Amino acid sequence: MRDVAVIGVGMIKWGELWDKSLRDLYVEAALKAIDDAGVDKIDALYAGCMSSGLFVGQEHIGALVADYLGMAPIPGTRVESACASGGLAFRCGLMDVASGMNDIVLVGGVEKMTDVDGGGATFALATAADQEYEVYNGVTFPGLYAMMARAHMERHGTTRKHLSMVSVKNHANGAKNENAQYRMTLTTDQVEGSVMVADPLTILDCSPITDGAAAAIICPLDMAEKIAKKAVIKVTGSGHATDMMALHQRKDITWLSAVEKAGQDAYKMAGAKPDDIDLVEVHDCFTIAEIMTIEALGFAEKGKGGKLTEAGDTAIGGRIPVNTSGGLKSKGHPVGATGVAQIVEVVEQLRGESGERQVKGAKRGMTQNMGGTGASSVCHILEVA
Amino acid sequence: MRDVAVIGVGMIKWGELWDKSLRDLYVEAALKAIDDAGVDKIDALYAGCMSSGLFVGQEHIGALVADYLGMAPIPGTRVESACASGGLAFRCGLMDVASGMNDIVLVGGVEKMTDVDGGGATFALATAADQEYEVYNGVTFPGLYAMMARAHMERHGTTRKHLSMVSVKNHANGAKNENAQYRMTLTTDQVEGSVMVADPLTILDCSPITDGAAAAIICPLDMAEKIAKKAVIKVTGSGHATDMMALHQRKDITWLSAVEKAGQDAYKMAGAKPDDIDLVEVHDCFTIAEIMTIEALGFAEKGKGGKLTEAGDTAIGGRIPVNTSGGLKSKGHPVGATGVAQIVEVVEQLRGESGERQVKGAKRGMTQNMGGTGASSVCHILEVA
Repeated sequence: MRDVAVIGVGMIKWGELWDKSLRDLYVEAALKAIDDAGVDKIDALYAGCMSSGLFVGQEHIGALVADYLGMAPIPGTRVESACASGGLAFRCGLMDVASGMNDIVLVGGVEKMTDVDGGGATFALATAADQEYEVYNGVTFPGLYAMMARAHMERHGTTRKHLSMVSVKNHANGAKNENAQYRMTLTTDQVEGSVMVADPLTILDCSPITDGAAAAIICPLDMAEKIAKKAVIKVTGSGHATDMMALHQRKDITWLSAVEKAGQDAYKMAGAKPDDIDLVEVHDCFTIAEIMTIEALGFAEKGKGGKLTEAGDTAIGGRIPVNTSGGLKSKGHPVGATGVAQIVEVVEQLRGESGERQVKGAKRGMTQNMGGTGASSVCHILEVA
Repeated sequence: MRDVAVIGVGMIKWGELWDKSLRDLYVEAALKAIDDAGVDKIDALYAGCMSSGLFVGQEHIGALVADYLGMAPIPGTRVESACASGGLAFRCGLMDVASGMNDIVLVGGVEKMTDVDGGGATFALATAADQEYEVYNGVTFPGLYAMMARAHMERHGTTRKHLSMVSVKNHANGAKNENAQYRMTLTTDQVEGSVMVADPLTILDCSPITDGAAAAIICPLDMAEKIAKKAVIKVTGSGHATDMMALHQRKDITWLSAVEKAGQDAYKMAGAKPDDIDLVEVHDCFTIAEIMTIEALGFAEKGKGGKLTEAGDTAIGGRIPVNTSGGLKSKGHPVGATGVAQIVEVVEQLRGESGERQVKGAKRGMTQNMGGTGASSVCHILEVA
């Protein structure tokens, strides 16, 4: 297995981008990553994308973006794992390079979510849950996470304020990120006073509907050491795991076992443990999700994710900064792009390029991307080479 | 790069399967492949699937099928490249094993297409074309292939009868395949007298709407030699290429350049040339597609695919048997499953298990799976180890 490194990343301003189509978004982020890497050819590309069929009536995304980048006939592969599509695309690109099939590979993630009405987006997102057992019976995604939040509060003593503090922290970080969709800072009162979506989750506990894309360029480590224009960031760990699709079929709806397994596999491959990680981007599609993911990854004890947040340990400058980018909550959540944007944030942090958000002396970062209510999860560990 | 082999395949009866859902189809084919391989564990799985969001309102297919196989927490990855999704899933599985990430990998393809009305299926299939430049203007898939057929007839002298003979041959083969959807034999008069879909293509020039799945088990070649219950089939070549999405943007709409490139890459990797291939499964979504793919793969001279068919060279017993399974035309075309079913047919032929359809002494076979009007193509070469 060849060692693999990231030599370029590209991120664009996320939001409601009425003047850009799905292909425009992917191409814009990809060209930025290519410029950042300074390469003049790409051997293959991947596209993480969740539900372009339902959002914009377009499948065949790998070929589409290869064409619109002017790169046909290179291989173009679209990978889907609901909201973990971006992280999984990165992992597929990693295996492509590691296998020796291709050398310089572009991995992008993209989603164009605002070209449907509100109900259309809710339906498309619900296809990440079990259609026959959950969606058919009327549940929505905020409803499923609300049940997880309520159970976590009952079982572990997590409070309404803990949830709010996740949102407040992530907006504080996102306010310093020029590519974030919602850059306003928040107070816990504002989170708790905002409109209720699914009790206990208010709209400021939920990540938004977003148009966006992100991209990275990877290649074999030995090649990176010769051609990279910036600090070489090595991919040392990768993990991918699944869990029951439907929430009611799980042993414990307050524990994300696919996140735990994907994290353990990534730690094992990297020869690292939670204490060795300097920052982590986790999948805070809802505030409760951040609390549960930092527990499953071993940064907080079981049931103590809210308390870790309350103690300030997950803020920039804290023991383990979580979602320095602003997370899905503030930066936005174009579902197929999110996992790749997590890679972008960690790479920039490890290069020391994060300005006001910089985690000082960061040498090793982690990403955790999640599909559905945790039926899939993909983790990566990246290190300064 | 580790050498990879196929040690098990699974195929189910295809058709309008009202009593089976998408997950049922995948699981049924996967269990057959697992039985065939005789393995008691799977390390990771892939699912080729084109448009489950539009067909059945379900994404997150990798996690779904891992769950319903009882295999969570293993990694489950869904791969999409329109009608080439199955072939591309096989290629991703190949890179996974080749990289050393996983050992025993299940690759399935699946599509449940009959749970929408006729217009819904036509819309879903059209998402393989360029939504903004082709579909928006009202073209359908039969319409696009009809333009390719008309141009091929004008430029190369291909006749209406050549098209018919592809259908007649493939139905003759499919009649001997118990898993085929439409097992009736046809005459050229029947093909030409059937209802017109898009001039010159009649309904008997078109592959049908199908529910189906197919699966294969792959592992490192050295492991296969120890654990395989049947003849080990080595994967010696793999190629994947793209072309312009929209037909009007191509230099020559009578030439499938992505098929040519994917084929050349597979030949190069395998150290083989067209004359070395004993049988090939190609993507005959429409009769004209078979004529064009056998040209692009080098089995016929440019423009002479119809004449090769007329000469009987592509029949079982001919110089290069094409679509011994019945092809998409007779066997059916559940879009995400087709590419994996092509692998199943070639593996069974190389093992000598194809009964009445057996190509005598077959040692090396090829598959060619295609997305859209040829904007993507994936080819594989398999050989008796």
